[in-house]
Amino acid sequence: MITLASDFGSPYPAAMRGVLLGRDPDARLVDVSHELPRQDVRAAAFWLREVLPCFPPATHLAVVDPGVGTERDALVVEAGEHAFVAPDNGVVMPAARELADDGEELRAWVVDDADAASSTFHGRDVFAPAAGDLHRVGVEAFAAMDRVSLADEFEDLRLPEATPAAAGAEGAVLTVDDFGNVITNVPGDFLDGVDSVRVNGREVPAVTTFAAVPEGQWLATVGSHGYVEFDVNHGRGDEAFGLAAGDDVLVERVE
Amino acid sequence: MITLASDFGSPYPAAMRGVLLGRDPDARLVDVSHELPRQDVRAAAFWLREVLPCFPPATHLAVVDPGVGTERDALVVEAGEHAFVAPDNGVVMPAARELADDGEELRAWVVDDADAASSTFHGRDVFAPAAGDLHRVGVEAFAAMDRVSLADEFEDLRLPEATPAAAGAEGAVLTVDDFGNVITNVPGDFLDGVDSVRVNGREVPAVTTFAAVPEGQWLATVGSHGYVEFDVNHGRGDEAFGLAAGDDVLVERVE
Amino acid sequence: MITLASDFGSPYPAAMRGVLLGRDPDARLVDVSHELPRQDVRAAAFWLREVLPCFPPATHLAVVDPGVGTERDALVVEAGEHAFVAPDNGVVMPAARELADDGEELRAWVVDDADAASSTFHGRDVFAPAAGDLHRVGVEAFAAMDRVSLADEFEDLRLPEATPAAAGAEGAVLTVDDFGNVITNVPGDFLDGVDSVRVNGREVPAVTTFAAVPEGQWLATVGSHGYVEFDVNHGRGDEAFGLAAGDDVLVERVE
Repeated sequence: MITLASDFGSPYPAAMRGVLLGRDPDARLVDVSHELPRQDVRAAAFWLREVLPCFPPATHLAVVDPGVGTERDALVVEAGEHAFVAPDNGVVMPAARELADDGEELRAWVVDDADAASSTFHGRDVFAPAAGDLHRVGVEAFAAMDRVSLADEFEDLRLPEATPAAAGAEGAVLTVDDFGNVITNVPGDFLDGVDSVRVNGREVPAVTTFAAVPEGQWLATVGSHGYVEFDVNHGRGDEAFGLAAGDDVLVERVE
Repeated sequence: MITLASDFGSPYPAAMRGVLLGRDPDARLVDVSHELPRQDVRAAAFWLREVLPCFPPATHLAVVDPGVGTERDALVVEAGEHAFVAPDNGVVMPAARELADDGEELRAWVVDDADAASSTFHGRDVFAPAAGDLHRVGVEAFAAMDRVSLADEFEDLRLPEATPAAAGAEGAVLTVDDFGNVITNVPGDFLDGVDSVRVNGREVPAVTTFAAVPEGQWLATVGSHGYVEFDVNHGRGDEAFGLAAGDDVLVERVE
Repeated sequence: MITLASDFGSPYPAAMRGVLLGRDPDARLVDVSHELPRQDVRAAAFWLREVLPCFPPATHLAVVDPGVGTERDALVVEAGEHAFVAPDNGVVMPAARELADDGEELRAWVVDDADAASSTFHGRDVFAPAAGDLHRVGVEAFAAMDRVSLADEFEDLRLPEATPAAAGAEGAVLTVDDFGNVITNVPGDFLDGVDSVRVNGREVPAVTTFAAVPEGQWLATVGSHGYVEFDVNHGRGDEAFGLAAGDDVLVERVE
């Protein structure tokens, strides 16, 4: 099984599907998303960490690659029974650490991309061929290929963590989802036993379901990823709260 | 075969794919759409009724669920050789009635969702696990599982029907498609032998193909679903006619 | 393997998937894109020519069909080990010529669509049934079916080619991709050894990677398709350059 994720929209992902099926017509392809936050490595890393652990063992191809065509390496990472193929910008590292066995030290390999047919579409020219080969022959045989070498070091992106503040927590917006929900890095238990919070100074009710407030009402809740998120029932939280990926948030419990 | 439908956009559907494949790595997954009209149960029910009958026997997972996290049940419905997994808000009922055998009384079961890991993403935590299990073991064995009980009653949503009016028909907009075509519930034979109609007072030609009128021209036609729809050739009918899902329409034949 | 491409958005492609699986529940379906440039046959033809050659031998269903319901034929085209099912408006011809064997003369058949259930959704009613049958029985048996006849002639769309001009090349915009990159028909070697070009009079640097210029900076580069394209690093080239599919471009080398 090969999963595919990118920020390519359409139709570029089809070229990757074709290349993968050209290497192995029986490969099973499963799309994760091709609408990952565009060129936002940290937000994409968050989504991959949320979604990929739902899958059984697979080869995960993930291309969010603002540095395409530069010196950044093409990387293969092994974690537990999963393998990842991605640019060496850390985008798959939070997912890989999540899927690693207890105490497993992650291993990574660099794939030579000097002969890529283009300098702008390594998804088609470097990453998909690598993922197809990796899926077909397995990690050990892949690592022995001529164009593959053990990685001395690699980018190990870690998502930022919220820190306690006087009356609450200082955190950051990790991403905004398709519904406009503003997903922060403040752990969900922050809302335990709390009826309302102040978000950057504005008070909103803390609830467990969207339907707990009228349509159009702002709210704070614990999202499916376990973090505090800010939403509007039947509306867009990002527009209401004026928040975007990367923004700082101060969340305070209202006593 | 498991079909997937939702209003989730991206990347949330990938979590459902992962869960389904975790239950059965050989399950065949086919996307219906993850862009169903957001939180619009009636419009989503229309689309499912239009599209699912094209499929061979399958397990249909369909999540448009404005009441997620509330008391509404998680439901499994059997109709003919098809099975449905959805919230108990009626979203799959028009499709289920369409796929039922002649005279078949629909059977439904409630899936206990008290232990769901989240209160906002039952697609991942309740519906996908149920669909995966149902697909793997079949309806009879599934119905015998501990967390499953026969449903005493369930929401049986029916799409509204147009009614005859003095000079034509009073109907409603069921949905607007991606092209901006305004799909009503007025049966297509309303246009038989008619050259033009008045839509809420405005006269437009009744034609059989978009290409029958110049680009930019408003028109009425019979859509692929068999209903009267209002369109603009190479344009958006919803914007031109000022109509949205749920709006009333008075359609009159022009003699 | 059956690939699917259209400009249908969602959820109409699901009806085609259902019909295909109804003809052959074991058929392997792979989406190319359902977001091809809407009703733009030439731009869609460009994308199909770029993407379909990445695939191993397959049946390619491609529906971009502004003339649906008119006299235009439904066509099956054979090229090498690939087969295409599409409206006879040329949309698959550049891809077919690309995939044809050396010196192969393309063969085509007309599929009778007189009995189509709708006049607006031949994707579901004509093209998908034809693709399903073609995939199941192969080209020879398909060609012998009652509703199929050899095509005397067919639309052979050719993408326009750029022409040399005094100080450079006169070309056209073939399409704009999801990133807003403006893809022209000027061959990439036009930029060999060039540091900057004038695009319709405006000078921009010619570079090999987006990252070679600061964010927000305009640029010309050779895209993954081998043509000159105009982009903005982390921005939309179409908006910056004021260019859309079909527009003329004069590109001049700056000495």
